[in-house]
Amino acid sequence: MSSFNDASSNGGSNPSSTKGKIITCKAAVVRGPKQPFVIEQIQVHPPQKMEVRIKILYTSICHSDLSCWIAENEAQRVYPRIFGHEAAGIVESVGEGVTDMKEGDHVVPIFNGECGDCSYCKSTKTNLCEKNRVNPYKSVMLNDGKTRFSTLDGKPIYHFLNTSTFTEYTVLDSANVVKVDSEASLKKMSLLSCGVSTGVGAAWNTANVQAGSTVAVFGLGAVGLAVAEGSRSRGASRIIGVDINNEKFIKGQAVGVTDFINPMDLKQPVHEKISEITGGGVDYSFECAGNLDVLREAFLSAHDGWGLTVVLGIHTSPTTLPLHPMELFNGRSIVGSTFGDFKGKSQLPHFAQQCMNGVVNLDGFITHELPFSEINEAFQLLIDGKSLRCLLQL
Amino acid sequence: MSSFNDASSNGGSNPSSTKGKIITCKAAVVRGPKQPFVIEQIQVHPPQKMEVRIKILYTSICHSDLSCWIAENEAQRVYPRIFGHEAAGIVESVGEGVTDMKEGDHVVPIFNGECGDCSYCKSTKTNLCEKNRVNPYKSVMLNDGKTRFSTLDGKPIYHFLNTSTFTEYTVLDSANVVKVDSEASLKKMSLLSCGVSTGVGAAWNTANVQAGSTVAVFGLGAVGLAVAEGSRSRGASRIIGVDINNEKFIKGQAVGVTDFINPMDLKQPVHEKISEITGGGVDYSFECAGNLDVLREAFLSAHDGWGLTVVLGIHTSPTTLPLHPMELFNGRSIVGSTFGDFKGKSQLPHFAQQCMNGVVNLDGFITHELPFSEINEAFQLLIDGKSLRCLLQL
Repeated sequence: MSSFNDASSNGGSNPSSTKGKIITCKAAVVRGPKQPFVIEQIQVHPPQKMEVRIKILYTSICHSDLSCWIAENEAQRVYPRIFGHEAAGIVESVGEGVTDMKEGDHVVPIFNGECGDCSYCKSTKTNLCEKNRVNPYKSVMLNDGKTRFSTLDGKPIYHFLNTSTFTEYTVLDSANVVKVDSEASLKKMSLLSCGVSTGVGAAWNTANVQAGSTVAVFGLGAVGLAVAEGSRSRGASRIIGVDINNEKFIKGQAVGVTDFINPMDLKQPVHEKISEITGGGVDYSFECAGNLDVLREAFLSAHDGWGLTVVLGIHTSPTTLPLHPMELFNGRSIVGSTFGDFKGKSQLPHFAQQCMNGVVNLDGFITHELPFSEINEAFQLLIDGKSLRCLLQL
Repeated sequence: MSSFNDASSNGGSNPSSTKGKIITCKAAVVRGPKQPFVIEQIQVHPPQKMEVRIKILYTSICHSDLSCWIAENEAQRVYPRIFGHEAAGIVESVGEGVTDMKEGDHVVPIFNGECGDCSYCKSTKTNLCEKNRVNPYKSVMLNDGKTRFSTLDGKPIYHFLNTSTFTEYTVLDSANVVKVDSEASLKKMSLLSCGVSTGVGAAWNTANVQAGSTVAVFGLGAVGLAVAEGSRSRGASRIIGVDINNEKFIKGQAVGVTDFINPMDLKQPVHEKISEITGGGVDYSFECAGNLDVLREAFLSAHDGWGLTVVLGIHTSPTTLPLHPMELFNGRSIVGSTFGDFKGKSQLPHFAQQCMNGVVNLDGFITHELPFSEINEAFQLLIDGKSLRCLLQL
């Protein structure tokens, strides 16, 4: 698959020349809630024990960056900070004890790490690592509670979501870095860093969508479309996309969406419409909007008796679940899904192969490409609902 | 197992003499919310197509009877009515089309029926039948929307929960009647009609408790103790019972409860205590109290990453779940369980055999026995927390 390769696979400077040294490079630094990204020179310190320093070649913007950038929750307000968690790059150097990666390896950062040693990593029931799991409040490295980023005059710049990818170089715990096939397009591999793994994994691992089953996806952003693609690849017979933006249906059709519902066009609740057209509701519904009213519609759209609702949206409202406990006795159930229930380091290399082999089609997810210097414009494209993923080239 | 047999297995009048006729017999009738049970003469009409008329030999009282008798929900207020759903008896006669039971068969009523034909019954994902499932608002028969009970002057008396067992004779859809081994003690079989099946099934079928795992049970009534017994029989290594009544620990020990927590004795939330003594929480927690604060404690007592909370309590408060959607991303999940996820007609005969073989120990669940005429006293025993099951002999 020639289209799966790109020139950038051979990009990057000679890594050995910088090993063990502080690297001075460009990064997009944020200094307060909703403040613009300012490209500035920063210092990136060498990786410590079980850490990896990566040269980022591509990064894109996800809704989680957006909600943390808005920082409604005060505990998230740690500045200056480098956001970004969806990316792909090349290992510049590794710290002491890292044996599964070496300089030059092609890698993707994963915000939801896998140390491989803790009771969580050894359990088949979770993909949340005890130490390296997703944590929007964490802003320093695990080793020493300090940052590997600093301003040119030595003041700390904080980390984000175990990753921080809006920078030419970043340092991560090795548990948060996955090596991928060097033949794979790093542009496309960046999608596995968050959105596509989250969506496809929710369909495959969390819901375990079966051939012939029916699916509804609420919110057709990159994650929702990846849920549809994951469901399509599993042979779902009907995939209903729900979004208030009609343009999303065109995107949806490319990944198997069979029916489109715009709630603004309906005079009835969405779940009633879905119940009508499916004879009682879908087998699986996915909430990818981060909205509690949508979550309730998704729950009620699942078939009485056995329907499963998977929550993927980031809910920033303090309001609790709009479900009555007795509603659980109707056989509908609800679960959350983090990183598509993939164990990143164990399972993502195989998933990457499946993407390369066409089991999952990644075409269409990258809708825009811009130079890194235009990161503020890329953010605006996402806010305006114009992009799925806008890839920034560093 | 001689103790598993009782004299009553041969009880009951000659059924053939009443077949096709109206039977006049005694029943405990309720005429308003919280009104006393009045034993009076009623008429029980013959079973229609796919219906079964049963002579009830034993019935007991469950908390669901209690909450429906209190009738906080106006839609439940249909009077006069015959409550009761946990019982055992003998088939007096069957209606047209019933082939799986005949006169003289030993049976238990099940409020959560199984027609065997609908898409729900054919699905392996649910035990809720499309037509004959648990429905506290239903008060008439499915066939004709009428009652099979009437006063001596012909006015209707309404049904309850597909069963109505506080009467010498009752009529049920055959989907709500399970035939059991005639060698089994009907006294003990009555426990399978609701509480024990609900509790043991929640551990076996809903949670699928594994050997060596840890369990917490909130509320040690009959259902909670049955959860403990089901967990014990699966080889759980630790079963923590939580109740505000210290006497429940003695009952609990008999069914495998290893640790007892009385929240009134603690200065910290129960979930913190459970986390301390289990190293992070239990694998499975069961809420059997019908209280939202307890439900939240049960949820937080489940282990981060993989803990499962099973809701069994009847929640009459209109308040929604006290859980934030983001809490689902910590890997804890919550499900409801109806009738222990047993498909009643398919699976209860085998479960009854397992009880007879001692896989599950039913000793201790029947704490009191009274004549049917003392039903009001039996209710009071349950309200006062003095009984688990008070068996009424008809």
